[in-house]
Amino acid sequence: MAQLALLGLGHMGQAMAANLIRAGHQLTVYNRTAEKAKPMQDLGALSAATAADAVKEAEVVFTMVTGDSALQSLALGVNGFLPAMKPGAVHASCSTVAPATNQMLARLHEEHGTLLVTAPVFGKPDAVDSAQLWVCVSGPAEAKKRVAPFWPAISQGQYDVGEDPGAASTVKLCGNFMLGAAIEAMAEAFTLAEKSGVSRQQIYEVMTGTIFNSPIYKSYGHMVATEDYKPLGAAPHILRKDLDLVMHEAQDHGVPMPIASIVLNHLTTTVARTAGDEDWTSFARRVSEEAGLRRPVIA
Amino acid sequence: MAQLALLGLGHMGQAMAANLIRAGHQLTVYNRTAEKAKPMQDLGALSAATAADAVKEAEVVFTMVTGDSALQSLALGVNGFLPAMKPGAVHASCSTVAPATNQMLARLHEEHGTLLVTAPVFGKPDAVDSAQLWVCVSGPAEAKKRVAPFWPAISQGQYDVGEDPGAASTVKLCGNFMLGAAIEAMAEAFTLAEKSGVSRQQIYEVMTGTIFNSPIYKSYGHMVATEDYKPLGAAPHILRKDLDLVMHEAQDHGVPMPIASIVLNHLTTTVARTAGDEDWTSFARRVSEEAGLRRPVIA
Amino acid sequence: MAQLALLGLGHMGQAMAANLIRAGHQLTVYNRTAEKAKPMQDLGALSAATAADAVKEAEVVFTMVTGDSALQSLALGVNGFLPAMKPGAVHASCSTVAPATNQMLARLHEEHGTLLVTAPVFGKPDAVDSAQLWVCVSGPAEAKKRVAPFWPAISQGQYDVGEDPGAASTVKLCGNFMLGAAIEAMAEAFTLAEKSGVSRQQIYEVMTGTIFNSPIYKSYGHMVATEDYKPLGAAPHILRKDLDLVMHEAQDHGVPMPIASIVLNHLTTTVARTAGDEDWTSFARRVSEEAGLRRPVIA
Amino acid sequence: MAQLALLGLGHMGQAMAANLIRAGHQLTVYNRTAEKAKPMQDLGALSAATAADAVKEAEVVFTMVTGDSALQSLALGVNGFLPAMKPGAVHASCSTVAPATNQMLARLHEEHGTLLVTAPVFGKPDAVDSAQLWVCVSGPAEAKKRVAPFWPAISQGQYDVGEDPGAASTVKLCGNFMLGAAIEAMAEAFTLAEKSGVSRQQIYEVMTGTIFNSPIYKSYGHMVATEDYKPLGAAPHILRKDLDLVMHEAQDHGVPMPIASIVLNHLTTTVARTAGDEDWTSFARRVSEEAGLRRPVIA
Repeated sequence: MAQLALLGLGHMGQAMAANLIRAGHQLTVYNRTAEKAKPMQDLGALSAATAADAVKEAEVVFTMVTGDSALQSLALGVNGFLPAMKPGAVHASCSTVAPATNQMLARLHEEHGTLLVTAPVFGKPDAVDSAQLWVCVSGPAEAKKRVAPFWPAISQGQYDVGEDPGAASTVKLCGNFMLGAAIEAMAEAFTLAEKSGVSRQQIYEVMTGTIFNSPIYKSYGHMVATEDYKPLGAAPHILRKDLDLVMHEAQDHGVPMPIASIVLNHLTTTVARTAGDEDWTSFARRVSEEAGLRRPVIA
Repeated sequence: MAQLALLGLGHMGQAMAANLIRAGHQLTVYNRTAEKAKPMQDLGALSAATAADAVKEAEVVFTMVTGDSALQSLALGVNGFLPAMKPGAVHASCSTVAPATNQMLARLHEEHGTLLVTAPVFGKPDAVDSAQLWVCVSGPAEAKKRVAPFWPAISQGQYDVGEDPGAASTVKLCGNFMLGAAIEAMAEAFTLAEKSGVSRQQIYEVMTGTIFNSPIYKSYGHMVATEDYKPLGAAPHILRKDLDLVMHEAQDHGVPMPIASIVLNHLTTTVARTAGDEDWTSFARRVSEEAGLRRPVIA
Repeated sequence: MAQLALLGLGHMGQAMAANLIRAGHQLTVYNRTAEKAKPMQDLGALSAATAADAVKEAEVVFTMVTGDSALQSLALGVNGFLPAMKPGAVHASCSTVAPATNQMLARLHEEHGTLLVTAPVFGKPDAVDSAQLWVCVSGPAEAKKRVAPFWPAISQGQYDVGEDPGAASTVKLCGNFMLGAAIEAMAEAFTLAEKSGVSRQQIYEVMTGTIFNSPIYKSYGHMVATEDYKPLGAAPHILRKDLDLVMHEAQDHGVPMPIASIVLNHLTTTVARTAGDEDWTSFARRVSEEAGLRRPVIA
Repeated sequence: MAQLALLGLGHMGQAMAANLIRAGHQLTVYNRTAEKAKPMQDLGALSAATAADAVKEAEVVFTMVTGDSALQSLALGVNGFLPAMKPGAVHASCSTVAPATNQMLARLHEEHGTLLVTAPVFGKPDAVDSAQLWVCVSGPAEAKKRVAPFWPAISQGQYDVGEDPGAASTVKLCGNFMLGAAIEAMAEAFTLAEKSGVSRQQIYEVMTGTIFNSPIYKSYGHMVATEDYKPLGAAPHILRKDLDLVMHEAQDHGVPMPIASIVLNHLTTTVARTAGDEDWTSFARRVSEEAGLRRPVIA
């Protein structure tokens, strides 16, 4: 059985850690706030006091944190894990971050004699339990090969998008953008329907019963139809950050992305004005507010 | 077996007519250009010289034409069918038109002693053969009840969105808008991916293999990924008209719909500048052009 | 001295009427609510009980009302003025309405043996007193020639944009759109400045002291800088109607107008959600709200 | 007379240098490509071989280059000027750059015992000859006071927007955005007019003769009306960079700026697809192309 480390124990990190333990691996975990390590210890994981300590013996180090600066601190800050990895070990970078962040870390890993695989996942935390996530990987062939044996513990399939460590990050960001676009489109359509005398529930049922009969439209559409955005799965500020990265990539690469602008603007308003205690999909309520159907939510 | 009429023999109208005949009904057809009636005659339909002649004996009159003015002419113009319908007959108005058009026709039907059911369909013509369309109906209960027996010949399910003859039209228009939004979102995402070094095919496979694993994203996404927009299913000017109706409804009802604006603008440019010989989804190529990836298509 | 009539005594209509009287003309006025005619009578005007009565002797009939349906009712409704005009008289249609409305009225005038000049004005009511408006005219040469002598009483200059009765309406609508675009641009810039630590007043002074040193930017910019949108000059619903007409024209003619969409959306929200007791320029506050700087205004 | 240095001899730098010489100051110039220094030497300037050499004796060092990286290289690269400035000297940073760039340089100046004033200018190069620019300054009071005596040689007025070295940069970027917004608005309006049968020249004359009677609308509007975007004043890629900075600021500060998105998108397409040999205002042609009025320009 392999020696592994997993850093970052949010919802998704915890679910991944649990599955890796269940699959029989020796896992050491680390989280900035230590109490989240406790349930993992109960399952059999070791808990380390620092990120550096956690990775010393690991063949593969999984990271799952909430953004570029968190990942950079974890890797390169005080007691950062990157310099502590053993030669030849592989960092599986699963967080949703800028392509440039994984590219920069890949260069530092190369100098250090370690490797990086960018490996964001698609799916919700509850999909991990049944190993129903998908993983999209990019990076050097050798690194991808070394991490490959561990994906079945958490995912039902892997997609390889090439050697560039930034590639899989770009794909993940595009996926989040496409989710946002689908939500905004439903918000506009359901709001028009409501103001035309067709209930949100009615149009939701027609759409998700016919041409948009897919889990994404059903689950997110249900929130848009009922305007009940609890419980909070991912916070608005997280997805705002993701869409912000999309727009930065779009600007850097010279790609007009007008729908991405609209989704980002609604997320920006959601972060600026609300308490942030509803799921990120609650940005859809801005459409109802702009149409005068609902009183604006204010923190 | 029932006496039926079907007016408008485009792709969808032909497919519906064929299925109604196969289901054993006595069908009379009419089309503005008569040669399209020939294949239906071969299947056993009668062909009438005018719309008025076609409907004289019909219990239900199905109409499937390409827009508001075509429907108005067919119903109310020279030899229009509405005044020729027999008392108590029902008009099943299946075309994608403005809610106001069906509302106006419903009032005229009421004065005339006939009935109208708005009944747009979801699906492509090839879905009719296997009766895999869905129908969304709205109108008076009596009218819906009288037409209900005939839907199984063409559809796998019916959705009832109430008594307002405009309601089902609104739902259909929203569906076309949501398709356009999904296509535009893929175009933006795939173009960003391509300019970032991830091929359109790669991101297409990841997205439609994971969270967007649905027939719509697969079929339309394949066109956006390959940028091959042949064969022409529905012409750009038809969908431009539909999005135009969406924006008119949005303006009339006071609903800001920024994504709908974007899709309409791209369709408008497609109609204004190209030969119109590619499928309506080809509006997605405007995104590639705006990013400088492709030379603009010009008629 | 000429026999004239003026129908519609809002702010602008009153100001125009007063100047025509002061210029020595014999003026008959009519307003839907009669009390507004009183100040004009005090200045020497006759007041008629109906629109039809008002125009019987007039060589030129000026109309200044708040939209297409008001103008159509006034001209063609019960006691409408159009059929009551004497042969050869000219209707100077000054309201901001759809080009199609003036084109339709022009055809009816032609059948009736009268003439129509489309003649929207640029400027605020207080510019009338000193005859500082501008008039933009379109229509038949004969009609423009007959009305020409009366413009100096209210305007400092006339622009002729051709024979099409719709042309001057299009120009007027474009002018209102351009004002809205300038206001929205200032709202976005001033809001970015404020969130960056530069006060709205500071950036206002730089902009209107340098490259945007013009009356429009100074007066509207002052409102955007102070966010004081009183007194109400023109109501939000009036300008919303104008931008709505712009978008309809844009859709009919196949012109993508993304800025016009944005301004319309903000006006739509303003009408849907606020009390409407602030000037139309108050749509600029939506930008501050979307950025989380201000609590949303709710009626 | 003061010892001054000016680094960066593009159109604007040359014009500023000439005026400082004419005002009697001892000026040393530097430009990356040396031949541009020749005309300044003919007027009496000294020419230095490096940026560091140029500033050794200077009380005030003016910089006017085309972007953030050019300014950073000039100040901090090989033979960079910042470490070569004498104690107490002031850097007047006139380029249009990100607020963060001037903030970063200000900190380095402080460590070095020198000072920075952010001082972008408003106006075109030909306005310098007659000292008709405006300057917007921000930075420490002492620094602003020390540079103040030199502004009258080039400008007709100064605006002080506070102590933050980023403030004046933000204001300058907002100004460029507002110009872009005015140009896009004219492009949309003139294109709608043209497709409605009113010539671009006609609507241009009405607008700039009435409510938009200002130099900016007249000069830029003339280009939009004639669609003649030569000669090239500022290149599209320069203004694209500026709008890109605006959007980055907007995203960082949480300000939805939909019009800025639109202008940036049109500039992005202009840079991606055209030869870049027309003035930046040529992005307005994208509107004509999108409406199908003109064949797209392709490099």
